[in-house]
Amino acid sequence: MASLRDELDFLLYRWLDVEALTSRRRYAEHSRGTFDALLDSSERIARERFAPANRAADVEEPRFDGGGVRLPQTTADALRAYAESGLLAAGHDYDAGGMQLPYVIDMAANAFFAMASVSLHAFGMLTYANANLILAHGTKRQREAFARPAIEGRLFGTMALSEPQAGSSLGDITTIALPDGKDYELDPLGPRYRLRGHKMWISGAEHDLGENIVHLVLAKTPGSDGRPQAGVKGISLFIVPRLLLDGAGHATRERNDVALAGLNHKLGYRGIPNTLLNLGERDGAAGYRVGAPGEGLALMFHMMNEARIDIGLGAAMTGYAGYVASLEYARTRLQGRMRGSDPSSPQVRIIEHADVKRMLLAQKAYCEGALALCLYCARLVDDRRAGDERCAADAALLLDLLTPIAKSWPSEWCLEANSLAIQVLGGYGYTRDFPVEQYWRDNRLNMIHEGTHGIQALDLLGRKVRAADGRAMAAWRARVEATCERARRDVSLAPWAHALFAAAQDVDAAARSAWSDEDSRLALANATPFMQAFGHTVIAWMWLDVAAAASSQARSDLFRGKRMATRYFFDYELPKTAAWLRVVAERNATCADMQDAWF
Amino acid sequence: MASLRDELDFLLYRWLDVEALTSRRRYAEHSRGTFDALLDSSERIARERFAPANRAADVEEPRFDGGGVRLPQTTADALRAYAESGLLAAGHDYDAGGMQLPYVIDMAANAFFAMASVSLHAFGMLTYANANLILAHGTKRQREAFARPAIEGRLFGTMALSEPQAGSSLGDITTIALPDGKDYELDPLGPRYRLRGHKMWISGAEHDLGENIVHLVLAKTPGSDGRPQAGVKGISLFIVPRLLLDGAGHATRERNDVALAGLNHKLGYRGIPNTLLNLGERDGAAGYRVGAPGEGLALMFHMMNEARIDIGLGAAMTGYAGYVASLEYARTRLQGRMRGSDPSSPQVRIIEHADVKRMLLAQKAYCEGALALCLYCARLVDDRRAGDERCAADAALLLDLLTPIAKSWPSEWCLEANSLAIQVLGGYGYTRDFPVEQYWRDNRLNMIHEGTHGIQALDLLGRKVRAADGRAMAAWRARVEATCERARRDVSLAPWAHALFAAAQDVDAAARSAWSDEDSRLALANATPFMQAFGHTVIAWMWLDVAAAASSQARSDLFRGKRMATRYFFDYELPKTAAWLRVVAERNATCADMQDAWF
Repeated sequence: MASLRDELDFLLYRWLDVEALTSRRRYAEHSRGTFDALLDSSERIARERFAPANRAADVEEPRFDGGGVRLPQTTADALRAYAESGLLAAGHDYDAGGMQLPYVIDMAANAFFAMASVSLHAFGMLTYANANLILAHGTKRQREAFARPAIEGRLFGTMALSEPQAGSSLGDITTIALPDGKDYELDPLGPRYRLRGHKMWISGAEHDLGENIVHLVLAKTPGSDGRPQAGVKGISLFIVPRLLLDGAGHATRERNDVALAGLNHKLGYRGIPNTLLNLGERDGAAGYRVGAPGEGLALMFHMMNEARIDIGLGAAMTGYAGYVASLEYARTRLQGRMRGSDPSSPQVRIIEHADVKRMLLAQKAYCEGALALCLYCARLVDDRRAGDERCAADAALLLDLLTPIAKSWPSEWCLEANSLAIQVLGGYGYTRDFPVEQYWRDNRLNMIHEGTHGIQALDLLGRKVRAADGRAMAAWRARVEATCERARRDVSLAPWAHALFAAAQDVDAAARSAWSDEDSRLALANATPFMQAFGHTVIAWMWLDVAAAASSQARSDLFRGKRMATRYFFDYELPKTAAWLRVVAERNATCADMQDAWF
Repeated sequence: MASLRDELDFLLYRWLDVEALTSRRRYAEHSRGTFDALLDSSERIARERFAPANRAADVEEPRFDGGGVRLPQTTADALRAYAESGLLAAGHDYDAGGMQLPYVIDMAANAFFAMASVSLHAFGMLTYANANLILAHGTKRQREAFARPAIEGRLFGTMALSEPQAGSSLGDITTIALPDGKDYELDPLGPRYRLRGHKMWISGAEHDLGENIVHLVLAKTPGSDGRPQAGVKGISLFIVPRLLLDGAGHATRERNDVALAGLNHKLGYRGIPNTLLNLGERDGAAGYRVGAPGEGLALMFHMMNEARIDIGLGAAMTGYAGYVASLEYARTRLQGRMRGSDPSSPQVRIIEHADVKRMLLAQKAYCEGALALCLYCARLVDDRRAGDERCAADAALLLDLLTPIAKSWPSEWCLEANSLAIQVLGGYGYTRDFPVEQYWRDNRLNMIHEGTHGIQALDLLGRKVRAADGRAMAAWRARVEATCERARRDVSLAPWAHALFAAAQDVDAAARSAWSDEDSRLALANATPFMQAFGHTVIAWMWLDVAAAASSQARSDLFRGKRMATRYFFDYELPKTAAWLRVVAERNATCADMQDAWF
C-alpha cells in the first residue's frame, strides 16, 4: 500500500500545492526541502519512539503513588524525542523562537505522531496550542516565561476549562479569581490573582516530565458588586503555573496552590493523565491574567478552534492506524474460498472477499477523506495568516464554517473505521493481542472532548451557517462549484460532480428550511443530523477534489485507489444524506416533543 | 420509566398474546401464573446476584494460576443462583426433567440476566443450548449422563467449533477423530473416538464451577481412504467431557485429554473465560459421537440457530442496560439552559435538551425494537414446536429467514445504542466510574461470534431469501401486509403502514435485482448493505405492530413512549434503507472490483 508518507506527499504537493506557500512573505525562507526534512524526521521519531510506547501507555495507566503521577518510562522517552524533534516550534514565529513553517506542514508532520499514539500526541498538541495562545495574547514577559520554554520543549501546557458541574456549559463555572493584593497589577508576569475552584477533565495536568506545567485556566472575576457574574461575561483567562516562578521567570521547586484531587480512569486515551484539580486548598492558586477582564472565553476560543481541527486529525489518524493494521491482516490471513471452489483447494487471503474489501474501502474512504479535510483546514489557517487580505478573509470565513465538521466528522466516522478494523480481524480483533481494539477505545473520546458532538452541531447550524449573513455558506458553495467545474472536465468524474452539486444544494436548502422561522427550538432540534449530512457532503467534496487532482497519475495504484475510494464514497455514503436532511428540512419535532415521562 | 418487567408484560401479554399458548397441548399445564412466577424470580435473582457481579467479572478477568482458571467468587455465586432459578430446565420437556415452558417465556426470563451481565449469562446460554442439542440428537444414555445434569444445574456446556485456522470456514477444521479400538461402538455412552486437534475461541471451557464441563466438538472422521475429507462433509459431532465418567455415568476426578492451551484476553465480555484448547496432547481426548458420521454441522446448527437469536437478545439487553443507565443520568444531571434563558436561572436537566432526547429515543427505538424481534422469533420457535402442522411450517419458514436479522441487527444497532449512552454521559461516560463503557465493550463481541456480520449477510441473501422458492420471503411479506392492514385502521398509524409496505416491497425488489442473473459474485458483493436494509425494515415492522397493539392503552405513558419511538424509527431510521438498497439493486461492483494493490 501507499505509506502515510506517500499519502501526505500526494495531498500536500499534488493536491494542496503547498509549495506555492513559499511565495508568501511569511514562508519565503522555506522550500520543499525544509518541509520534507520535518516530515522525514517526524516519520522516523514517530515510528521509533511513539509507536512502541503506545501499548504501554494503555496498559500502564497513569497512577498516583502518593508522591505524584507515574507514567511509563517509554512515555517520558517518547515525549523527550517529540520535544527534540522541533515540532513544538514548527509553526511559531521566528522571533518567538519558532521555525515559521506553514501550519499545514506542521499538521502533516503531526499526523505521524497522532497515528503512532494519539494519547501521547495529546501532550504535544496541548502544549503547542497553549504556547500559541500566550504568544498571541500574552505580554512580552508572559511570552518569555511561559511560551518560550514550551516551544523549546522544556515545559508542558494544559487547558483548564471544565468543572464537575460545568462541562458544555462554561457560563456555569464557579472558579473564582480575586485580585491578589492592592498592587496586583504590578506583577511583572501580569495582573496577579488568587484562584479557588475545581477543574475537571484536565489532561496532562500532573506529571514530572518537564520543568513545569502551565495551566490556562478560565475563572470568574467579581463584577462591580463584588460577586461573580452569571453567564459567560465575567470569565477571564489566567496563566496558572504548577510550580511558582522566581524573579527571573524560571520555575522554582515551590508548588503553586494547585492540587491533584483525582485521576479519571478512562476507557482509552490512557497515555495522558486526566485529572480533577483543586485550586486554592490553601491561600489560593497564583494566576496571571491574560488579556482583559471578561475576555476569557474569546481568547480561549483562539486556542480551541485550532485544537478542534487537531482533534479531527487525531481521530483521522487513529482511524488510519486501524486501517493499516487491518489491511496488513487481510493480506495475510487465509480463510474461506471463492463461492463454488473445490473445498480441497487452498484457502484464499481474506482480502479477496468482497465484504472484506468493502470494510477496507470504507476505512480508506473515511480516514483518507478525514485527513484530507484536516489538511485542507490547516491550509486555510495558512491562508488566513499569510494570504493577502481577500484571501485571508475568505479563508477565515470558510474555516469558521468547516471547523465543527473537521472536529466532528472524523470523530464519528473514523471511530466507525476502527470498528470495521476490529471486524476485519474477527475474534482476533477483539483480543488485546492486536492493536485495533485499543484504537477503537482511544478514538471514542473524540466525540466528547473539545466540545461534544451535540455542541458542534449547535455551533454549526445555530451560528456558523448563519454567520456573516450566510456569506460563509456562499463561500463554501463557490468552492464546491469550482471543484465540480474541474471534475466535469473529466468525463469519468462528471456524474459525481452532478451528485455533489445536488447534495450541496440540498444541504443549503435544508438549512434555510430549518431557519424558515426564528423558532430556534425546531430549527435546532435536528442539528446533529444536519451536521452529519453536511459532513458527508464536505467529505464527498474532498474526495472529488482529490480524485480530480489524481487524474494526472491515472496509471498509478495511488490514483486507482483514490478513484475507487471516491466511487465508494459517492455510491455508498453520500446517498445517506437524504435521510438526515429530511428531518432537518421538515423541522421534524419528534425529539423536541418527546417527554421525560414517556421514556 | 417503564421497568423491563412492564415492558416484557406488555410485549408478552398485550402484543404476542403468549397466554394463548396455554391452549396448546404442550403448554396446557401452564398459565399466566406459572409464567409470571418465573419472570418474578428471574428479575429478582438477576438484580440481586448478576448485576452486582458484572463489574468484578470485567475487572478481575479470568486468569490461569498454574492450577486452573480463576474467576471471581461473585461469578460463582451468580451462576449458582442462576442454576437454582430453574432457568436451565425451563424450556425442556417434562420427561427430560424440564418445566416445558414456552421458549418465549424462557427468553423473556433470560432477558433480565442478559441485561444484568451479558458475559455471565453466556454460561447459562451455552449450557442450555448444549443440553438442548443432546436431548434432541443424543442417545438415552447420553441424555442421562450429559443433558440431565446440565438441566439440573450441576454441569456446564460449551460448543467447540472454531480452530485457529478455521473460524468462519468450518470446512477447514483439522481436528481429527479416530475410532477408539475395535469395540469403539460398544461404549454405553456412544461410539467412542479419540480426538486430536486445537480448538479456538471456546467460551466457558475451563473453570471449576460445576461437576464437569461438556464440550460439543466438531471433528473430522476419516473417509474411506483413511484420510480426513475436504470440506464440510466429513465433519461429525462429539461429546467430549472435561472429566471422564465412571461406569454409572458420573464425573470422576480424572481429566480427559483436553488441555487449556491459552486464555484469550478480550476487549470485553470478560466474565466468561475464552480459551484455546488442545485435544490429544497424550493419548487423544475421549469423545462420544452424537448422531451419524458426517452429520456434525447439521446437528450443530440445531444449536447454533437458537444460539444466534440468543446472541441477538444479549446484544439487545446490553443495549437496554445502557439505555436505562443513560436515561437515569439524563434525568438528574443539570447542564445548560433553554436557548435565550437568563444565564442566572438554574441549569436544566439534560433530558430537556432535544439532542439528548434524540439520543435516548434512538436507544429506546433500537433496544426495545430489538427485544421485540427476539421475542417474536422465540414465539415462532414455540409455534414451530407446538403449533399445528400449517402453523409450524409457516413458523419454521419465517424463523429461518429472520434468524440472521435477529442475530445481526441487535449486534449492530444496540452497540450503537451503547455508544449513544456514553455520549449522553459525556466525559463521565468515558470513565470506568460508570457502567456504560463496559456495556459498549461487551457488546462489540456480538457482531463477531456465532457467525460474523458478513457471514449472516451471506446466509440471508445467499440462502434464506431464495430458500423454498422464495416462500419464506412471501410468508414475511404476508405478515408485514397483515400488520399494515391492522395499522391502517388507526388513522394516526396509516402513513407508517404506507411507508412500511413500500420498504418491504423495496427490499424484495432489491433481492430480486441482486439475483437477476446467477453471477453470485455481484449478487453477494453487497450482502451486508442488503442485510442492513432488511434489518431496518424488519424493525420498522416490529414497531408498527407494537404501536398498533399499544393503541388500546392510548392514554398511558407506555403507549405514548411506544408511539414516539415508532415515529422516531419511521422518520429517522427507515429512510436510511434507500441508500443501502441502491447498491444492492444496481449490483454495484465497487467492492468486488477493488484490487489489493490499490489500497
